[in-house]
Amino acid sequence: MNTEAQEVEKKVLEKIKPSRSDEETLKSIANLVVNELDKFKQQTRIDMKISVEGSFAKGTWLKTDPELDVFIILPSNYDKEFIKNELYPKLRAWLNDYSPIEQYSEHPYLTLQIHGVKVDIVPSIESLPGAKIITAVDRTHLHTEYVKRKTDERLRDEIRLAKAFARGIGVYGAEIKIKGFSGYLLELLTIYYGGFRRLLEAAAYEWVPGKIYIDIEGVSDPLQAKQAFGNPPMIVIDPTDPRRNVAAAVSMEKLSEFIMAARLYLSNPKEEFFFPKPLHPVEKRRLLGLAETFFENVVLVELRHKARLPPDTLWGELQRALSIMKNILEKNEFEVYRCDAWSDEKEQSILACLLSTPIKTKYRLIKGPPIKEREHSIRFIEKYLHSPFLGPWIVGDRLYAISVRKEVLATSLIEDHLGEILVSDLTDSTAKVSLLSWRPEIIEDEEIGEWILSFLLGKPKWLWALLDYQKV
Amino acid sequence: MNTEAQEVEKKVLEKIKPSRSDEETLKSIANLVVNELDKFKQQTRIDMKISVEGSFAKGTWLKTDPELDVFIILPSNYDKEFIKNELYPKLRAWLNDYSPIEQYSEHPYLTLQIHGVKVDIVPSIESLPGAKIITAVDRTHLHTEYVKRKTDERLRDEIRLAKAFARGIGVYGAEIKIKGFSGYLLELLTIYYGGFRRLLEAAAYEWVPGKIYIDIEGVSDPLQAKQAFGNPPMIVIDPTDPRRNVAAAVSMEKLSEFIMAARLYLSNPKEEFFFPKPLHPVEKRRLLGLAETFFENVVLVELRHKARLPPDTLWGELQRALSIMKNILEKNEFEVYRCDAWSDEKEQSILACLLSTPIKTKYRLIKGPPIKEREHSIRFIEKYLHSPFLGPWIVGDRLYAISVRKEVLATSLIEDHLGEILVSDLTDSTAKVSLLSWRPEIIEDEEIGEWILSFLLGKPKWLWALLDYQKV
Repeated sequence: MNTEAQEVEKKVLEKIKPSRSDEETLKSIANLVVNELDKFKQQTRIDMKISVEGSFAKGTWLKTDPELDVFIILPSNYDKEFIKNELYPKLRAWLNDYSPIEQYSEHPYLTLQIHGVKVDIVPSIESLPGAKIITAVDRTHLHTEYVKRKTDERLRDEIRLAKAFARGIGVYGAEIKIKGFSGYLLELLTIYYGGFRRLLEAAAYEWVPGKIYIDIEGVSDPLQAKQAFGNPPMIVIDPTDPRRNVAAAVSMEKLSEFIMAARLYLSNPKEEFFFPKPLHPVEKRRLLGLAETFFENVVLVELRHKARLPPDTLWGELQRALSIMKNILEKNEFEVYRCDAWSDEKEQSILACLLSTPIKTKYRLIKGPPIKEREHSIRFIEKYLHSPFLGPWIVGDRLYAISVRKEVLATSLIEDHLGEILVSDLTDSTAKVSLLSWRPEIIEDEEIGEWILSFLLGKPKWLWALLDYQKV
Repeated sequence: MNTEAQEVEKKVLEKIKPSRSDEETLKSIANLVVNELDKFKQQTRIDMKISVEGSFAKGTWLKTDPELDVFIILPSNYDKEFIKNELYPKLRAWLNDYSPIEQYSEHPYLTLQIHGVKVDIVPSIESLPGAKIITAVDRTHLHTEYVKRKTDERLRDEIRLAKAFARGIGVYGAEIKIKGFSGYLLELLTIYYGGFRRLLEAAAYEWVPGKIYIDIEGVSDPLQAKQAFGNPPMIVIDPTDPRRNVAAAVSMEKLSEFIMAARLYLSNPKEEFFFPKPLHPVEKRRLLGLAETFFENVVLVELRHKARLPPDTLWGELQRALSIMKNILEKNEFEVYRCDAWSDEKEQSILACLLSTPIKTKYRLIKGPPIKEREHSIRFIEKYLHSPFLGPWIVGDRLYAISVRKEVLATSLIEDHLGEILVSDLTDSTAKVSLLSWRPEIIEDEEIGEWILSFLLGKPKWLWALLDYQKV
């Protein structure tokens, strides 16, 4: 038994486990919301049940991360259209005093902030046992039941540790921005392995990405399931629905990061894995000063959005734009170290790629056809005979030539291709392309400065825990 | 029938076909040499036959390229050691007045220059029919017999065209410097196809490198032969010895160049394919001026040799050095466009590589292990956590980091590795590493200047024929 780890986990639990008074506070907020919705039901006369779900209902919520999920459950004869066109607009108007924020997953829902607690109000449709589920959230109630049934007080604390760990290392959340581990996934994994430490040990020593298959209740046929799910990094069968992979959102990166973080935590348990140490502003300044060498290797696309998009939509498009941008750079032989996006999720976003160099040589090597392709090889010679006058020549049985590069600057290249990069909802945004070295003032914004630093450092947050700042 | 080509070939033949008086001149030189060797035989009392072989004996020599091969043939009970230790030193002393140049293939031989004609004097051992051949040159007599028997006056002219074409496009010669087509190989190919034009057509439209198998007399078993010869670019069975591939020396490049040149000649017949136009000095200056942009991308190793080596040995080592040099540059992520060597074959040689850039960024991307390699991945993180402070990070299931490059300059890199590059007989040479831009004065030497220009242009000589200098 690792007593050092025990000590760390005890301290962490003290910080994350809600007290009786925390419970009371959340309960009173829940009651407030349920009352509001009851009044809404009476006023609209829509047939609905109101139900508190999620980690609060399951008893697995974190004191450091209080949140409530309140579900509006419509009878099974309703459909998504009704939610979207009838229920949602009325609900939004009804809750206007709480300044609701519009969210969107499969259909719209609302987020309120009440006394610092995030409250999601989620309309859904009841799914009858055995019938086809209409929206993903309709399973929530089944999930709540399952987790409550399979856990006791001890296991709920273990789940809290798992969630705090995942949050600390930056892999908590199934949303597109993160592509990590959902709360329900961490609950199932902790239940399956019987505790937090055993979960980490499994991740560290047993998990092989692409070969993880977990079916707690043995409700699925592994062969059939693997076929149905394609080849995801990990498969965790939903015990309430064998057709569903609870880990479907988990990206290869986040899974790998979880595995590596588990290995490093087990050999070097530190509270910083759960609570990444915020950088002292002086230290941040110093590191940004060091990182300044790389400012001229960062291509930025600064976006101003005309319309506000739901976060999942926005992040989906930012990530798509990022991947097109990376592709264009690589097709033009820029060496791309890393790309990332930042957004205030309101009106401003930034795409960034770190390159080995933002300026390429004027000339580039063209690999021509093998000489056995007769027509093609003669055309190649004709094409490159005079321009830019070096080559063509033959190596082995293949033709080569030197050609002139159209764009030697990464920034000009990206500017020329903005139309390809900004598609769908991003076409409306205004975009400004530059190198970070031309725009050092953007790091004055605290949030952007922190993101730039973390982008340049490149390390996942769990490595910051091991980083000795004095050494860099 | 392509009359344009006919016209070109007629003009070429007028230039390359020896006249009766050319014949007489060469014959008298042959007699002179044979007489000298007869006297040598009488003086030394070594049992030997003296025989004039090669293209003069076969009637396939070029007026523009007069040369004689005179063989000293020892009876079959002699061995290579005797040639090396007894015959050769005496022969050399005997011919001292002709300033003989020492050459070396399987054993030493001598080259004389008499009235501008190159005369090779080659000791060999008679091979009895059916017995194992002792040295490669022992087959020469059989070759002479075969070619004389299979050709008439017309076919000998066709062979002359084939040789002049191969010489013009720079693929004539089996020596290591060229790795091209020997005279005997071109004789066999012309005999096989019945003429020069038909040979070019076969090369242009039928030959696929690696799949050329020619056995004029049908003396070999193709399956067995292919196994015995490995997988060379082309196989041409020696009609006098089925165990020998006459095309063994032909490199993939020279074969490919022959094929491409044949295609371009057939569609655009020009005398320049046979006689590359020498550049007007003014034009050469102008092109070198244009090429100056690239001088800073050429890494030079200038060598001064202590001892003079036989050309084949020297070129073998220069090419080996070149390939090691290219490897070291590429392992350190320099993009190498092309490498080549020049030598005066006496005391001075130059190795050169053309790079996309001679300076790399200070930082380089390191591809680490996949995270499923547990120990390896933890060691990787420990190694790169602080140095140079960017990374490590994860893409997919693999670790990456940024590291500091030891050498950012191609010249320093090559200097650090000279010990690996200059091996065997080259270790004695003094070496100076520089960029061509630091040493522009070396192009003042006419021969080196011409080589540098041709190195930078990169085009094989047969492409110069198509080049419109006005356009570059």
